[in-house]
Amino acid sequence: MEMQPGQMAYDRASTVFSPDGRLFQVEYALQAIQMGGTAVAVTYDTGIIFVAFRNLPTSSLAESGSIEKSFAVDTGLGCVTAGLIADSRVLVEFLRVEAQRHRLTFGETAPYAVLGHALGTLLQQFTQFGGTRPFAVSLLLGGFNNNVPGLIELDPSGATIGWKAYAIGRNRRAVADFLEEKVTDHLSEEAAFKLAVQAVAEGSPTPFQPEALDVAILEPNSELRRFLPPEVARRVQGLPFIGAPEKKSGNR
Amino acid sequence: MEMQPGQMAYDRASTVFSPDGRLFQVEYALQAIQMGGTAVAVTYDTGIIFVAFRNLPTSSLAESGSIEKSFAVDTGLGCVTAGLIADSRVLVEFLRVEAQRHRLTFGETAPYAVLGHALGTLLQQFTQFGGTRPFAVSLLLGGFNNNVPGLIELDPSGATIGWKAYAIGRNRRAVADFLEEKVTDHLSEEAAFKLAVQAVAEGSPTPFQPEALDVAILEPNSELRRFLPPEVARRVQGLPFIGAPEKKSGNR
Amino acid sequence: MEMQPGQMAYDRASTVFSPDGRLFQVEYALQAIQMGGTAVAVTYDTGIIFVAFRNLPTSSLAESGSIEKSFAVDTGLGCVTAGLIADSRVLVEFLRVEAQRHRLTFGETAPYAVLGHALGTLLQQFTQFGGTRPFAVSLLLGGFNNNVPGLIELDPSGATIGWKAYAIGRNRRAVADFLEEKVTDHLSEEAAFKLAVQAVAEGSPTPFQPEALDVAILEPNSELRRFLPPEVARRVQGLPFIGAPEKKSGNR
Amino acid sequence: MEMQPGQMAYDRASTVFSPDGRLFQVEYALQAIQMGGTAVAVTYDTGIIFVAFRNLPTSSLAESGSIEKSFAVDTGLGCVTAGLIADSRVLVEFLRVEAQRHRLTFGETAPYAVLGHALGTLLQQFTQFGGTRPFAVSLLLGGFNNNVPGLIELDPSGATIGWKAYAIGRNRRAVADFLEEKVTDHLSEEAAFKLAVQAVAEGSPTPFQPEALDVAILEPNSELRRFLPPEVARRVQGLPFIGAPEKKSGNR
Amino acid sequence: MEMQPGQMAYDRASTVFSPDGRLFQVEYALQAIQMGGTAVAVTYDTGIIFVAFRNLPTSSLAESGSIEKSFAVDTGLGCVTAGLIADSRVLVEFLRVEAQRHRLTFGETAPYAVLGHALGTLLQQFTQFGGTRPFAVSLLLGGFNNNVPGLIELDPSGATIGWKAYAIGRNRRAVADFLEEKVTDHLSEEAAFKLAVQAVAEGSPTPFQPEALDVAILEPNSELRRFLPPEVARRVQGLPFIGAPEKKSGNR
Amino acid sequence: MEMQPGQMAYDRASTVFSPDGRLFQVEYALQAIQMGGTAVAVTYDTGIIFVAFRNLPTSSLAESGSIEKSFAVDTGLGCVTAGLIADSRVLVEFLRVEAQRHRLTFGETAPYAVLGHALGTLLQQFTQFGGTRPFAVSLLLGGFNNNVPGLIELDPSGATIGWKAYAIGRNRRAVADFLEEKVTDHLSEEAAFKLAVQAVAEGSPTPFQPEALDVAILEPNSELRRFLPPEVARRVQGLPFIGAPEKKSGNR
Amino acid sequence: MEMQPGQMAYDRASTVFSPDGRLFQVEYALQAIQMGGTAVAVTYDTGIIFVAFRNLPTSSLAESGSIEKSFAVDTGLGCVTAGLIADSRVLVEFLRVEAQRHRLTFGETAPYAVLGHALGTLLQQFTQFGGTRPFAVSLLLGGFNNNVPGLIELDPSGATIGWKAYAIGRNRRAVADFLEEKVTDHLSEEAAFKLAVQAVAEGSPTPFQPEALDVAILEPNSELRRFLPPEVARRVQGLPFIGAPEKKSGNR
Repeated sequence: MEMQPGQMAYDRASTVFSPDGRLFQVEYALQAIQMGGTAVAVTYDTGIIFVAFRNLPTSSLAESGSIEKSFAVDTGLGCVTAGLIADSRVLVEFLRVEAQRHRLTFGETAPYAVLGHALGTLLQQFTQFGGTRPFAVSLLLGGFNNNVPGLIELDPSGATIGWKAYAIGRNRRAVADFLEEKVTDHLSEEAAFKLAVQAVAEGSPTPFQPEALDVAILEPNSELRRFLPPEVARRVQGLPFIGAPEKKSGNR
Repeated sequence: MEMQPGQMAYDRASTVFSPDGRLFQVEYALQAIQMGGTAVAVTYDTGIIFVAFRNLPTSSLAESGSIEKSFAVDTGLGCVTAGLIADSRVLVEFLRVEAQRHRLTFGETAPYAVLGHALGTLLQQFTQFGGTRPFAVSLLLGGFNNNVPGLIELDPSGATIGWKAYAIGRNRRAVADFLEEKVTDHLSEEAAFKLAVQAVAEGSPTPFQPEALDVAILEPNSELRRFLPPEVARRVQGLPFIGAPEKKSGNR
Repeated sequence: MEMQPGQMAYDRASTVFSPDGRLFQVEYALQAIQMGGTAVAVTYDTGIIFVAFRNLPTSSLAESGSIEKSFAVDTGLGCVTAGLIADSRVLVEFLRVEAQRHRLTFGETAPYAVLGHALGTLLQQFTQFGGTRPFAVSLLLGGFNNNVPGLIELDPSGATIGWKAYAIGRNRRAVADFLEEKVTDHLSEEAAFKLAVQAVAEGSPTPFQPEALDVAILEPNSELRRFLPPEVARRVQGLPFIGAPEKKSGNR
Repeated sequence: MEMQPGQMAYDRASTVFSPDGRLFQVEYALQAIQMGGTAVAVTYDTGIIFVAFRNLPTSSLAESGSIEKSFAVDTGLGCVTAGLIADSRVLVEFLRVEAQRHRLTFGETAPYAVLGHALGTLLQQFTQFGGTRPFAVSLLLGGFNNNVPGLIELDPSGATIGWKAYAIGRNRRAVADFLEEKVTDHLSEEAAFKLAVQAVAEGSPTPFQPEALDVAILEPNSELRRFLPPEVARRVQGLPFIGAPEKKSGNR
Repeated sequence: MEMQPGQMAYDRASTVFSPDGRLFQVEYALQAIQMGGTAVAVTYDTGIIFVAFRNLPTSSLAESGSIEKSFAVDTGLGCVTAGLIADSRVLVEFLRVEAQRHRLTFGETAPYAVLGHALGTLLQQFTQFGGTRPFAVSLLLGGFNNNVPGLIELDPSGATIGWKAYAIGRNRRAVADFLEEKVTDHLSEEAAFKLAVQAVAEGSPTPFQPEALDVAILEPNSELRRFLPPEVARRVQGLPFIGAPEKKSGNR
Repeated sequence: MEMQPGQMAYDRASTVFSPDGRLFQVEYALQAIQMGGTAVAVTYDTGIIFVAFRNLPTSSLAESGSIEKSFAVDTGLGCVTAGLIADSRVLVEFLRVEAQRHRLTFGETAPYAVLGHALGTLLQQFTQFGGTRPFAVSLLLGGFNNNVPGLIELDPSGATIGWKAYAIGRNRRAVADFLEEKVTDHLSEEAAFKLAVQAVAEGSPTPFQPEALDVAILEPNSELRRFLPPEVARRVQGLPFIGAPEKKSGNR
Repeated sequence: MEMQPGQMAYDRASTVFSPDGRLFQVEYALQAIQMGGTAVAVTYDTGIIFVAFRNLPTSSLAESGSIEKSFAVDTGLGCVTAGLIADSRVLVEFLRVEAQRHRLTFGETAPYAVLGHALGTLLQQFTQFGGTRPFAVSLLLGGFNNNVPGLIELDPSGATIGWKAYAIGRNRRAVADFLEEKVTDHLSEEAAFKLAVQAVAEGSPTPFQPEALDVAILEPNSELRRFLPPEVARRVQGLPFIGAPEKKSGNR
């Protein structure tokens, strides 16, 4: 990120605007998210596919299942995140508690837009009050409205936008352009899966192994289902950008 | 925004006046609002038209309905905002809760001026107490007084002014001058709509597609009604500043 | 305001004296008040006239009634303010609540001096405790003592002085000198009104329209009555400093 | 006040000693008091005279009675202050509440030394804890011990000293030397009054009008009695330093 | 750690991102951990071996048992730490209390992943809120899932990753590579022990005595068992990197 | 106090050690105490003599009894102070309340060592927690243990040391050396008094009048008795260092 | 302590790591401890000897018993401290209260390791939270485990290590090396006493008098017993490093 002269005077706190009205700490948090792996969510006729690149140790000793990018929130509610792992955990925990609170109060799954706005309000507070920093997380929250799948994107500023398919994390803009071009109406699950994996590949500078992918599927009235490594491996077979396995611990 | 020598000494906190009595953080928040799209509200004989430019992704994958600039507050109460999305959400939520509180206490819709002053007091506190920043939002709150429509404008300082028609956001002054010149007494809904769309066009450097507009109408004793995209498209047909559709994700 | 060498070291907080015993933030707040319009209050035999210049948009779209400079506080209690609009609202609200509290406790209208001292104590706290800034408001509070009208002036330091007639805001000193010279004993309401309007004109560099004036009258045992624009226009007719109407939005 | 090299490093907070053990903010508060008018208290056989110069507007429009320098605290208890008006109000209010608390608890007028120590403790806290500034007030508190009048002086540090007669405010030292020289045992009320007025005149660079003086008398078992302007004028008649009346608003 | 130009502007608080999205205080805490001894955990068929190098006084007067690197948490739960001793104590105490709370609520041993996420959330808070610093501790928490041993790694950022075997502290990356290469499926306890000791030796620049090792074993349904020095000495006999005893107090 | 290069970086807060482990604010508070007058306490066979120099106004208008350096704490408990008057008042008040608390709880006079440790703990807190400054007071607290008199010295750090006789304030070290040389076992009250007065004279650069001395005596089972000025004058008669009376207000 | 370039940027708060992971305020607190006298604890067959050098006034007027370095905590629990006197008092008071709390809850003397860990946790908090400084105290806490004596060392970081014999304060490392060399198994009380005194002498640059030593002994089921000066004098007789008495007040 290029620095303008004088920028440093305004970039040390979430509670200070620069003369041109920018909140630099929010922009720097987005920069932190850019350093993580690409994550993509694609809606299809009856569900949502979440695919994320785990730029984490590819060591055979790592429990790949422990490096979570997609998370179940409640029945028919799930999300994928990009950014700091520990910040993500806090936000996912917030979503889960909010979802349970809604269920207890209204006896129904929380509408995903309601949950997204609640999370956006939480994120906004960390951009306005002192003694803290914004969360360095972008998040795609998915759910259903009368069985129609939908996504809501959250970023460190607390802004929310709805999408049919979108990308967060590394090379977000290029990957989003790819999706814009390729996504068509009435995708099948299979097509959505392939598209999502291809999109993540667009965001990665080099080929990668199947284990680098965290894949999950969300369908109405059921929990988010994370694919086990063999299932991922089987389904990506033959896709060109999947590299040969190389067994070495990553550069963390 | 041009910097005066010595300005930087006083512009890092809401709690510090400069030697000439200015609160720079409030001015910088106004600058942030200038970066967002123009929003306009025009009262007519029996209601209020709100039109806002969404300078947000024009991607076909975005759910344009999720990028809200106008908001229902209560029966016969609504608003349009310019500035940071997440800050707007907090203020709209404040208005909605205040409106419900008034309804529960007095059994009536809150007068829009009362609501506006309550919000102004909230905004003022963020210009006087430390450890925080002003809200980067301008807002036009509309309502009715004995079925006569009225608007109250709020800015980051917490100041409030009443208007028959006004503009906030990008190029606010030029757009307000346009309205000043064009608005006449006893407008019809159709005339008010066209004037509001033209005013927003005045604030935009280039032609735009119908989907770029968030349009809503407020009438007495009913909820604010946001126009669906087809309705917007139909009604703006033939207006010169509406560009041909170009399908590419925006520069966010 | 001219800066002395070394002044900047002591002018960033209300809680710091300069070596010569000054509180710069209080002085800067006074500077902010100087940027607003002149306001004047003149007592006469049986009441008080408040006149204030609204240096706010003269646009025909603005609801001039919404740009308030004079405020009813309680029966027989009112005030006029100069300075930041949103700060004024907070102080007026304080006066109204204090007045009601007094009425509930003692079953009478609060003496205006008692109210003034309570407000002065509030203002003082914002000059002594950290994490905040002084209020940028001067205020003339009027009331009656056995039907004899009186005024108490408050400034950002919290100091209070009683006056028969006085001025706050832009060019305060010149306007006060004008009043000093012109005010005589046993003014009629008409004479007090003319004098107050002339005094405000003294504070204005150029002629102005009648709508630029916020005029109110306070008499014993009744609420402050703000003049409607036609009444103002009628009564200022023929006064030389009232300019021809020019219809353009102001320089805000 | 002359600055020593390095002084600025230690003079920005009440909570920091300089290397030579000074608290600069306390010294700067004393400097603020020096900018106000001289105030004097002189005990005599059966009472105490308080005389203070009001360096405030001599405008005929000002209610001179509203510019108070001497204050009743309780029966047989009163004080005169020098320094910031609003700070003084806070301290006088403290004394009045403490006096009532003592009366309610012990059924007697509070001894003036007890009250003085309580106020000194309040003042001290504002020299030791952060986020605030010292009070810029010196105060002479008078009362009776078995009908013998006495004075206790308080300054911003919270230190207390007892006096038979003393001066605070502008030119305090010269005026105190004058009193030291002139005060004798067994003064009559008349002699004490003249001496006090002369002492205040010692502190003033130019002659002044009678209205510039705030005069009050305290006797046992009664409230402090402030002289009305005619009484002051009558009693100072013929004293050389009383200037001819010049009617112009002061330099505030 | 090499400093980039400008880095110092952003590295003084946990609540500030640098322009490239880094949290320097978290990175510096990792640096503190690098100064401590290597610690290793290796799972085998039925349990977990923890081995840590104590870079603490090798004086014969030290109670080696008091220099703890591995800690029992609850039945079937244990951990090994690297970093500041006192910070470790706080985290271990947190884990023990959380484990008891789970046991009291659910009547079962807390799943180690649940405990790990709770600790991660604690660690995250110390990277986001002001007035504090991150914990300078990395920790390998071990437990069982249906008798299958597992490890979860925590670092100062609060991130969590699962491992079959891993290393923390000095030369963490080289030691982890060693483990990656050597660890095979279905290790026996003996093999795991030898591998863990060899891995710690990889992290140490010089040979060391048996007493320098803190060794513990964790098996299902029992408390973590720390080996007594004679047992350690006996079992490492003959391993090449074990140095001859040299009796001198360490360089602390 | 001579400044070392770099000292200024560490001397602005009680909560910061310098690289060589010093707390400069505590040292600066000691410097403030050095600016006050010398105070001495000497135990003798059956009691304790406290003598303090009051470097305060020698004006005949001052109530010398109001300038207290020695204070009764409880029956058989008293103290003498050096340093800031207002800080001393706070500490003496603390001692008095603690003594009453002990009396209420245990039905006995508080042992002076217990009181001293309680005060030391209070003083220590002001050297460790932020937002405040150390107390600028040294204090010699006297009491009896089975009728044997004893002294405990407290300084701004909160350290406590017991003494048979000691000095605080100006020229403390020289005066203490004088006492060390002159004090013998089994002093009579008269000898202790003379010795104490002589010691105070050692600390004073010039002769002084008897009124400059605050003298008090403490004996078991009775309140501290402060000598009235005539008694002091009578008893110091003929001592060489007592100057001729010169009647002029001091240099405050 | 030598300063590295850049060190000053990170050494002003306990809550900031330096780039190489150091907490400078903790290191500076250790430096403060180095300025105090050496203290030593040596366990022997049935107890513990504590010997400390008091680098405090050797004046004959000082009550040497008031300068405590060793403290009873509870039956069979005691400690010796090095560092700031007032900080030590706070920690000893903490230990005593914790010991009583344990006794009330469990009906037994608190295990010394449990007490030590509680104190370590207290110390750690002062290295992690803002607005305070670390305690400048090292402490050797002694107790018994089934009548076997043991020591636990605490330093400002909150780290704890167990020892058979150890030294804190001035020249800690050299003295610890001395102990390492000389301490053997099964020491008698007499041998332990001589060794401890010799060790303290190792830490002192010059010979000293017996009164300079604070000596205490701790045995199971009894309170720590501090030796009276005659007992110390008698037992050190003939030891070479005990200097001839020289009667002069020390350089404090």
